[in-house]
Amino acid sequence: MDNHHFFMGEALAEARKAFEKGEVPIGAVVVHRGDIVARAHNLRETAKDPTAHAEILALQEASRVLGGWRILDSVLYVTLEPCPMCAGALVMARIDCLVYGAKDPKAGAVESLMNLVQFPKLNHQVEVIGGVRETECSNILKQFFRKLRDKK
Amino acid sequence: MDNHHFFMGEALAEARKAFEKGEVPIGAVVVHRGDIVARAHNLRETAKDPTAHAEILALQEASRVLGGWRILDSVLYVTLEPCPMCAGALVMARIDCLVYGAKDPKAGAVESLMNLVQFPKLNHQVEVIGGVRETECSNILKQFFRKLRDKK
Repeated sequence: MDNHHFFMGEALAEARKAFEKGEVPIGAVVVHRGDIVARAHNLRETAKDPTAHAEILALQEASRVLGGWRILDSVLYVTLEPCPMCAGALVMARIDCLVYGAKDPKAGAVESLMNLVQFPKLNHQVEVIGGVRETECSNILKQFFRKLRDKK
Repeated sequence: MDNHHFFMGEALAEARKAFEKGEVPIGAVVVHRGDIVARAHNLRETAKDPTAHAEILALQEASRVLGGWRILDSVLYVTLEPCPMCAGALVMARIDCLVYGAKDPKAGAVESLMNLVQFPKLNHQVEVIGGVRETECSNILKQFFRKLRDKK
């Protein structure tokens, strides 16, 4: 099992926590020099906060743990391709590398609608690895929305 | 004095609070149906948080006050053109209208580098009014960076 597979599994575990709370199941972890320093999942409904995406919460936690707003030597793993807000936050935080699972054709700001994390005129670019455990990351979302439709 | 002028004055007052704390002086307010429901200023250094921009903090406060992640019927005033993270957050929050002061040629995601708040494929677009009290909004930043250079 390679590192990306393992750490994406941790992000998937976070996504399952979101699922249990009735939140769109998206999870993220931040890995700093090989150690997980932050774990988070989408809490938009619970927190009633438009910024409470898994990536934003994970970056906030990582900056608390590491003691500064620059989250250096770190990789962020997230189950879904980040939206523009989260892609922008990765650049702001100076994240080295983004690893994500499923694509988001509706709001993805890494490859689907645009590529904000490697925008040449911004002062930082993020390495990107997509498609890690893509099917599992996508399936948990499909399962969530199917359940939501069945309820209605 | 028109409303935009007045509310931008309140955002400028927030920017001055940031200045006093040694933070890059950017301020924001959220106005919901004519009332200020949130005030915030950049706290990136103080909070040691890459997401602690004035706009993000103001949106978080507005969602607490209004009780949901959708910040409807609201205008966000900010002294500087938002970065990609903050522009994305405005779309996520479903803000009706963005009013800003100075342009940000280095990271502005409304007119300088791109226009994220009116990106056709995203599920919400934000009305934009730029250049309100532009000189004052720009001057406080110039004054801050001049002081920083003099110190060095």
